Amino acid sequence: MTTDTMPDLMISTLPNSSESRSIAVTLQNDPTLSRSYEIVIAAHSLPHLGTKLRDLGLGKKSQKVLIVSNPVIFKHYGDAVQTSLQDSGFEVAKVILPAGERYKTAKSLQSIYDAALAHRMERSSLMVALGGGVVGDMTGYAAATWLRGIELVQVPTTLLAMVDSAIGGKTGINHPQGKNLIGAFYQPRLVWIDPTVLRTLPARELRAAMAEVIKYGVIWDRDLFSKLLDSPRLDQLRYIKPELLDTILYACAKAKAEVVSKDEKEGNLRAILNYGHTIGHAVEMVTNYRTFNHGEAVGIGMVAAGAIAVELKLWTQAEHEQQLSLIAKARLPQSLPTDIDLEQIIVALSLDKKVSAGKIQFILPTAIGTVKVTDQVSSEVVRKVLRQILTQ
Amino acid sequence: MTTDTMPDLMISTLPNSSESRSIAVTLQNDPTLSRSYEIVIAAHSLPHLGTKLRDLGLGKKSQKVLIVSNPVIFKHYGDAVQTSLQDSGFEVAKVILPAGERYKTAKSLQSIYDAALAHRMERSSLMVALGGGVVGDMTGYAAATWLRGIELVQVPTTLLAMVDSAIGGKTGINHPQGKNLIGAFYQPRLVWIDPTVLRTLPARELRAAMAEVIKYGVIWDRDLFSKLLDSPRLDQLRYIKPELLDTILYACAKAKAEVVSKDEKEGNLRAILNYGHTIGHAVEMVTNYRTFNHGEAVGIGMVAAGAIAVELKLWTQAEHEQQLSLIAKARLPQSLPTDIDLEQIIVALSLDKKVSAGKIQFILPTAIGTVKVTDQVSSEVVRKVLRQILTQ
Ligand SMILES: NC(=O)c1ccc[n+]([C@@H]2O[C@H](COP(=O)([O-])OP(=O)(O)OC[C@H]3O[C@@H](n4cnc5c(N)ncnc54)[C@H](O)[C@@H]3O)[C@@H](O)[C@H]2O)c1
Ligand SMILES: NC(=O)c1ccc[n+]([C@@H]2O[C@H](COP(=O)([O-])OP(=O)(O)OC[C@H]3O[C@@H](n4cnc5c(N)ncnc54)[C@H](O)[C@@H]3O)[C@@H](O)[C@H]2O)c1
Ligand SMILES: [Zn+2]
Ligand SMILES: [Zn+2]
Repeated sequence: MTTDTMPDLMISTLPNSSESRSIAVTLQNDPTLSRSYEIVIAAHSLPHLGTKLRDLGLGKKSQKVLIVSNPVIFKHYGDAVQTSLQDSGFEVAKVILPAGERYKTAKSLQSIYDAALAHRMERSSLMVALGGGVVGDMTGYAAATWLRGIELVQVPTTLLAMVDSAIGGKTGINHPQGKNLIGAFYQPRLVWIDPTVLRTLPARELRAAMAEVIKYGVIWDRDLFSKLLDSPRLDQLRYIKPELLDTILYACAKAKAEVVSKDEKEGNLRAILNYGHTIGHAVEMVTNYRTFNHGEAVGIGMVAAGAIAVELKLWTQAEHEQQLSLIAKARLPQSLPTDIDLEQIIVALSLDKKVSAGKIQFILPTAIGTVKVTDQVSSEVVRKVLRQILTQ
Repeated sequence: MTTDTMPDLMISTLPNSSESRSIAVTLQNDPTLSRSYEIVIAAHSLPHLGTKLRDLGLGKKSQKVLIVSNPVIFKHYGDAVQTSLQDSGFEVAKVILPAGERYKTAKSLQSIYDAALAHRMERSSLMVALGGGVVGDMTGYAAATWLRGIELVQVPTTLLAMVDSAIGGKTGINHPQGKNLIGAFYQPRLVWIDPTVLRTLPARELRAAMAEVIKYGVIWDRDLFSKLLDSPRLDQLRYIKPELLDTILYACAKAKAEVVSKDEKEGNLRAILNYGHTIGHAVEMVTNYRTFNHGEAVGIGMVAAGAIAVELKLWTQAEHEQQLSLIAKARLPQSLPTDIDLEQIIVALSLDKKVSAGKIQFILPTAIGTVKVTDQVSSEVVRKVLRQILTQ
């Protein structure tokens, strides 16, 4: 993993924002090619996407680009992207899918394929995902499978997509009976992050993603963690200084890219990205995906995992409380609804995809920036901690 | 690429058949992992599949296997495979899809996913494709995409699947408007070839695959080519001596694996596998996929490509005639129906997926075992050769 700034791309930066930053990701086990790709973070960079794609050599064989987005996002940012691509000589078509997780389906995928066919996309043509994780996952999967793989660029527009879903190569759609059951590992050619698009993102989406940001601090990046602690609030974009936002985006993208490039498939290292997700998923399931969104559930999951680590004397109470304070700054819930049935959570845990040989895998912090993966957590400890969270 | 026999697996061989042979394939750019897999060719080996999978370490985490097949094939060989797997302790479920190319669809794929869900398959569970290229392509694609990739074993039951489709990692389904438009590169853990299953294969299927066998002789394996010349007939299994069948399976699997492992994605080397396919595809298209099956069209395509090579003085007439004699031994057509419209073929050629910048790519023999890839064939030469074939 190397990091460097990007002197050859002139990008005007946001007032108060530091210069553009770029991360070069090299994947050891790239599922498509042994190649690297760049993650670029630069304010006001959307209009420069076309130029960058040319610099990367895209469009040498095929000029065709298919932008995939949803109505809200395309309304805000579609023109900027489309104009930038057209000004660079690309032939642009678009497919606008309905917004929301429940449209991350085979049917939406079919719409992308149909648009690719109508646009007569070739192997060297490009799909651009302009959106959050839903658009990114579907577009990535479509790009992975159309003609057995065409070019892909991720332009994430949610904080979650910027720090998580657009990086790492996981793509997919939902099966009527389960999330992300159908998918592929597929890497983009470029991840193009313009932080200014977050200005229109609903605050609840920002807060949810903040759970993942805190996660990276706990599992990987002590420095990020302490910078987050320095910020009085983390719940709305306007409270987050541009430099902190830059740091967040850079540190999280780097953390995820590092973890993933060291262990591209669901191996042991990548498992640490599931910190907070074991109990988080169970909570989402038991509350029928209604009470909490994903980030909120992950927040609760981190509270629980932290408490388990303290209970098992793996982690200090002091650091756990620092984590709690970050979760509070992001205005994420720290406790379970009192009417929840804890035994249902225990059952849901046993259904987790990561369960192997009946043992539930937990990611537990041992110090800020370091976690361990273990399946040695008794259900008594889990119950005890869940009861604490219930009555908090 | 290394080749070796397989001393650790005891397999009874067909009377008159040489011992089991195995090819170890190492893929440079494996899309899933940098790993190798084995292609085993052994008569009467179906009942030993379970043991072999255990030897490979499969079933250590998950015992679940899903066999994908079609009614005809499962009737003949389903029991042998299922029993073998069950005897080795696997939990076996099956999904039997309707037979035929027109069922290589998103709908059949959905049936595989549904069966995988019902069987509660995990990441380390296994799909076994028991069938020809249709079953193999769909199952491979389902395995590539279920939970972003589970284990896959190919048990090819057609000659085409044994020498071509089961090897090389191309998987996929059809889009209503085009063949193989949706797919992924995904490698199996094992390709398990029991040549005795060919006894029930319809002769027309055998002949069609023989076109691909001849293709490998021309593009890659001079020795195979001359052994094929030695055989008086190549049109029915009973005329093909067991040793020759072994040689065919071994040489073709090795040829394809070599080409593919040197150039896993559609690069320049892999392109040589399209020998005979440029004009072949155009002929299939213009005759609405009714007059000829794929192999027959490829046969005609090889006749045309050979003639073009002779016309361009790249190849000798004598070698071209040897190729013609092999095509005759396989009772494959060597000429076009007289009512065909040659201009339609020219148009169809320009629609080929491999067309880049308007230039049509041809694979032309220069000597038995060697071809070159060129886009320097004028449409005049193509027309002239097609007219020859028309009146032959
Ligand atoms: N591939 C991975 O590794 C990975 C990792 C984590 C999550 N995910 C997936 O990501 C998805 C969740 O992603 P998400 O949280 O980005 O949700 P999302 O894509 O549904 O976006 C959230 C909402 O914000 C809107 N929106 C997006 N950008 C906006 C902007 N700039 N301004 C205004 N509105 C905007 C969207 O229209 C949507 O309504 C889930 O499907 C999840 O499975 C994937
Ligand atoms: N993935 C690749 O690299 C690749 C390469 C070439 C072709 N293909 C694909 O392969 C498919 C064609 O494969 P195919 O020629 O094997 O056709 P197929 O799978 O349709 O099989 C041909 C017929 O033979 C029957 N059959 C199969 N094995 C039998 C047996 N042992 N005894 C009796 N009947 C048997 C089948 O039921 C079917 O009716 C096409 O879809 C093509 O796109 C893929
Ligand atoms: Zn998450
Ligand atoms: Zn073929």
